[in-house]
Amino acid sequence: MDIVMDAQALNAFLARDFPQAAGDHGIESVGPDKLVARLRVDDRHLRPGGTVGGPSIFALADIAIYCAILSRIGPVALAVTTNASIDFMRKPAAGRDLLAECRILKLGRSLAVAEALILSEGAGDPVARCSMTYAIPPKRPENSAL
Amino acid sequence: MDIVMDAQALNAFLARDFPQAAGDHGIESVGPDKLVARLRVDDRHLRPGGTVGGPSIFALADIAIYCAILSRIGPVALAVTTNASIDFMRKPAAGRDLLAECRILKLGRSLAVAEALILSEGAGDPVARCSMTYAIPPKRPENSAL
Amino acid sequence: MDIVMDAQALNAFLARDFPQAAGDHGIESVGPDKLVARLRVDDRHLRPGGTVGGPSIFALADIAIYCAILSRIGPVALAVTTNASIDFMRKPAAGRDLLAECRILKLGRSLAVAEALILSEGAGDPVARCSMTYAIPPKRPENSAL
Amino acid sequence: MDIVMDAQALNAFLARDFPQAAGDHGIESVGPDKLVARLRVDDRHLRPGGTVGGPSIFALADIAIYCAILSRIGPVALAVTTNASIDFMRKPAAGRDLLAECRILKLGRSLAVAEALILSEGAGDPVARCSMTYAIPPKRPENSAL
Repeated sequence: MDIVMDAQALNAFLARDFPQAAGDHGIESVGPDKLVARLRVDDRHLRPGGTVGGPSIFALADIAIYCAILSRIGPVALAVTTNASIDFMRKPAAGRDLLAECRILKLGRSLAVAEALILSEGAGDPVARCSMTYAIPPKRPENSAL
Repeated sequence: MDIVMDAQALNAFLARDFPQAAGDHGIESVGPDKLVARLRVDDRHLRPGGTVGGPSIFALADIAIYCAILSRIGPVALAVTTNASIDFMRKPAAGRDLLAECRILKLGRSLAVAEALILSEGAGDPVARCSMTYAIPPKRPENSAL
Repeated sequence: MDIVMDAQALNAFLARDFPQAAGDHGIESVGPDKLVARLRVDDRHLRPGGTVGGPSIFALADIAIYCAILSRIGPVALAVTTNASIDFMRKPAAGRDLLAECRILKLGRSLAVAEALILSEGAGDPVARCSMTYAIPPKRPENSAL
Repeated sequence: MDIVMDAQALNAFLARDFPQAAGDHGIESVGPDKLVARLRVDDRHLRPGGTVGGPSIFALADIAIYCAILSRIGPVALAVTTNASIDFMRKPAAGRDLLAECRILKLGRSLAVAEALILSEGAGDPVARCSMTYAIPPKRPENSAL
């Protein structure tokens, strides 16, 4: 399936429609098989013990998967997560951003399934893995105005 | 199993160890079968379309389940989520707080499993359901100092 | 929502459309809030150590949730599981059947979400918990012929 | 981590300790990054509509992930699944075996996390994805006798 929104278009979309998320997150790259998103880790994301909190990792996976879907179907602000499953496996490396490497497994008319691997930048072993299902609403005229 | 931290003790723990979370969240009640936690919804939690974002619902479930475990074992700041599964089922009611009703299903020495139902306050049908596994570290002397 | 298939009707449906499953499984009761299904445990279900295997527990949860949905919408043989999440928490009690207590959390036009608690008959603590999403196909004329 | 059981050793282990599973399943290959397992599909696995039932897909993923762990730690019959999450995405191709491609994401002392992609042999798009957590018991002397 063709890529209809690249990293620049996705970042512009986030900045406009998800301004709070856009401050912390960015789309690094969008390829045929993989999208990479970044969480710029700062003190607000940290939990006791210096680890990045689960909700921040969830948010990164959510944005990566959402943008991976949008990269194929265009801006659909009302696509919603219906299911998420996460395994938290390792403590992130201190002082590093987190990256989510996302792959779409199914892109149907009404449901999409994707998975993301969360890594500390420059480290080998994954911090977490996540799979999500998104419900895609029928396309509506106002979405085509973007 | 006895309750060793009540709602007041849990809120004091959150305020001290999780100050950012404590601003938005509170423990309403702790009973033998159920803990209830609240997310004070404000604009920061909202997504396009007026819904509460998935990460905010995840964070509420996470805090409810974490506190339900602490209510039985006492303050263990380093207990960590190892797995989470969430189904997002309905859009929250506009202008209402979210409540998480949490139940512990297993409380072993090293792993605990619990589930939470997320509801808009005063509404009947659940917004989301969540189950999580927590890894509980061996008790360490400094924890008994709280 | 009204119950349109009771335990007897569901067992007849299983015997006709799922004869292999019907040999091991039965619907015990269908109430407004809860369906109970049984797995008649025999040696075929056992793993080393005498525990019931994960696939057998999955199959019990799947049948319980499927029948809970059918109890509300009538016989739709082509409803399919799209997502399942299970926590296996305790070894089943030796020599006892397993029961699944199932509750529907959402019954939409195209998606249903339900959860099941798996217990050894007569024992208090749950063996497993499961949540599943089912995709419900549009109703077709031949389904109404049952 | 070194591979300590290859496909032949794993198939011998299944035949001895899981004779029922071994009739349907086989380990195709074990590599540094990927284990491949096969479900020899026959009529017993089929559901109405000709699809392979969810429990059979669960069983294939379970065996693939179990054997992937054993391939690294040796025969530990009492390792148990503690959590599983599956997305069923497409109907399997008719008349073809199913393959599970499994990758270990974490192999700790007491917990292992792995994921598997389920495909119809010779087809491109995945039928299902699964992630599982296994609890690994402390090594016991009798295991070293194999």
